[in-house]
Amino acid sequence: MSDSPSRLDAFDAYRSRMNARILDEGTHLGIKRFFNLDTAAYRDGALDTKTKELLGLVASMVLRCNDCIDYHIEQCTEAGWTEAELEDAMNVALVVGGSIVIPHLRHAVETVDLMREREGGASE
Amino acid sequence: MSDSPSRLDAFDAYRSRMNARILDEGTHLGIKRFFNLDTAAYRDGALDTKTKELLGLVASMVLRCNDCIDYHIEQCTEAGWTEAELEDAMNVALVVGGSIVIPHLRHAVETVDLMREREGGASE
Amino acid sequence: MSDSPSRLDAFDAYRSRMNARILDEGTHLGIKRFFNLDTAAYRDGALDTKTKELLGLVASMVLRCNDCIDYHIEQCTEAGWTEAELEDAMNVALVVGGSIVIPHLRHAVETVDLMREREGGASE
Amino acid sequence: MSDSPSRLDAFDAYRSRMNARILDEGTHLGIKRFFNLDTAAYRDGALDTKTKELLGLVASMVLRCNDCIDYHIEQCTEAGWTEAELEDAMNVALVVGGSIVIPHLRHAVETVDLMREREGGASE
Amino acid sequence: MSDSPSRLDAFDAYRSRMNARILDEGTHLGIKRFFNLDTAAYRDGALDTKTKELLGLVASMVLRCNDCIDYHIEQCTEAGWTEAELEDAMNVALVVGGSIVIPHLRHAVETVDLMREREGGASE
Amino acid sequence: MSDSPSRLDAFDAYRSRMNARILDEGTHLGIKRFFNLDTAAYRDGALDTKTKELLGLVASMVLRCNDCIDYHIEQCTEAGWTEAELEDAMNVALVVGGSIVIPHLRHAVETVDLMREREGGASE
Repeated sequence: MSDSPSRLDAFDAYRSRMNARILDEGTHLGIKRFFNLDTAAYRDGALDTKTKELLGLVASMVLRCNDCIDYHIEQCTEAGWTEAELEDAMNVALVVGGSIVIPHLRHAVETVDLMREREGGASE
Repeated sequence: MSDSPSRLDAFDAYRSRMNARILDEGTHLGIKRFFNLDTAAYRDGALDTKTKELLGLVASMVLRCNDCIDYHIEQCTEAGWTEAELEDAMNVALVVGGSIVIPHLRHAVETVDLMREREGGASE
Repeated sequence: MSDSPSRLDAFDAYRSRMNARILDEGTHLGIKRFFNLDTAAYRDGALDTKTKELLGLVASMVLRCNDCIDYHIEQCTEAGWTEAELEDAMNVALVVGGSIVIPHLRHAVETVDLMREREGGASE
Repeated sequence: MSDSPSRLDAFDAYRSRMNARILDEGTHLGIKRFFNLDTAAYRDGALDTKTKELLGLVASMVLRCNDCIDYHIEQCTEAGWTEAELEDAMNVALVVGGSIVIPHLRHAVETVDLMREREGGASE
Repeated sequence: MSDSPSRLDAFDAYRSRMNARILDEGTHLGIKRFFNLDTAAYRDGALDTKTKELLGLVASMVLRCNDCIDYHIEQCTEAGWTEAELEDAMNVALVVGGSIVIPHLRHAVETVDLMREREGGASE
Repeated sequence: MSDSPSRLDAFDAYRSRMNARILDEGTHLGIKRFFNLDTAAYRDGALDTKTKELLGLVASMVLRCNDCIDYHIEQCTEAGWTEAELEDAMNVALVVGGSIVIPHLRHAVETVDLMREREGGASE
């Protein structure tokens, strides 16, 4: 059993700890409302959550934010997108954003692999 | 009959003229191949064209490119996305990209209105 | 009397018309809430409105959005910042954002001049 | 006593070492002049240093540069901005720059906490 | 004789007028020094002016600033780069920056055509 | 002998491993074609490889991607650019992109130093 999912686990732990710091200990109403609005943006509406999470992933890739990419890959996987579908979305992000996106494509592909391992689907 | 679709018509004409200039008169193989790759990225694959065009729209909005927004709204409309669905995608782009996206949201909403007029669906 | 403020007037009219289109005719709750949150972010809080509008101006300049620059220059002028103070803030934006900001600095300086003319303070 | 300020200390040491490498060992006049211009931009002028450092912080957040954020938080703290004021400025950056700024907001809030610890002002 | 170079002429005139406004009427020393530093960066040094102007063009394209693109195409043409060489540099910018650069590629190609016309080389 | 080149070696190993993962194990034709197009963009054409690698370096710096900077510094060094020439190109990137580029300038200068050490040219 590889310990490779540890990068993802560390990210999840840091994200949870700092979100708690910001939302529970923090007192700025505007910031809390922004987090609520952010969460609400991905809820079922005219578009369903599944579609919106894929939009979030592509937006994160063209804006080149690895933490955002990891978060949306987790959400996309949970929402039911397959690896082939995620890869096809990443291709759109790559073409729109150009080769400057490639380091983030590497990160994203690695994250997809780590997600599969974490879920026990790893065969190696 | 309003002449308000003229902004869209002017964009389409300019886009067609310059693409012909680049692809027909131009001789750079790399540039032509990039345009082919760009077109191919939105063809049915693991994801269908309809979904990919919506990804293209959100990517264009967070990267704040009005010409790209207009192009993808045209493609999204043709692919069958409703105005409510486009608006829901724009909301994701707005939350991801922030208030700096608002001028492009104004542009995008105006383009959706112009598309409806152009297609004769305007009731006013 | 020069008609040079017309660029600013046209921007204000377009902005008002499209905001009404989005907020009054539009039905997307998330988008409306984002606009509210945006407005609220510049209200007196730990920092006063005047300071926050200057932050908004510099953010708009380094992100290179002319419409946002015009809006925040209007707000900054109303909040009481002098031309020399605005210029000093623009210098910070120029140094942080680099020469790619220069076209937007030209736009911003022109907007400050148009604001002065519009307010009848022009001596030339 | 926690060793958590180590991230800040490591950043300060790296920043000092590389600045010395660039400015003392380096010979490019243009680069040296740029560093001088950058330093000068935050000196008292029409705006005071304190205000300009806050502008620098917000510019760094919307441009999403963690090193720049850390540097300006250090300068802002030294200039006398309180944590509540910094948080209010961060909220402006969050609204302007959108959810893509959130990972940098987490970093910034952590840096503010590390600054407080480093200064021995932690009461918890 | 076509009047198509008018877009370039209008840009040159606006650029000259606003630079004079900023540098001659303006009083901010930091801004003036930045303009000097910007000019100096393209002077012969370890690299010659010709090479640096091509760097400036590619930087302007990936950062997607049409005014900067026009300026550097003018400088590159004056420095002796051929159209085929400019096109090859634009291809690098396109691949690095992605399809979001395409509207700026259209603009750049049009500017190269306008430059040729302006210089009397137009055969149509 | 210092082990400082290890950052570069780790980057090279990660880059090779993930590129193999994407290109050998991956099945997405569009992504593979993009990688081919990216490689082809730097081959001798109207401009030679050496010039194009310098364009790639400056594009990477103004877009602020450390992995891309490292890759292009490696390629530029192999193509024969001297340290003084690389530094002059970095100065163009710094002026175009502003002080937000400084952390990436630090990284780039460190990478140039690591390259020299790796090649056994280190005298310390």
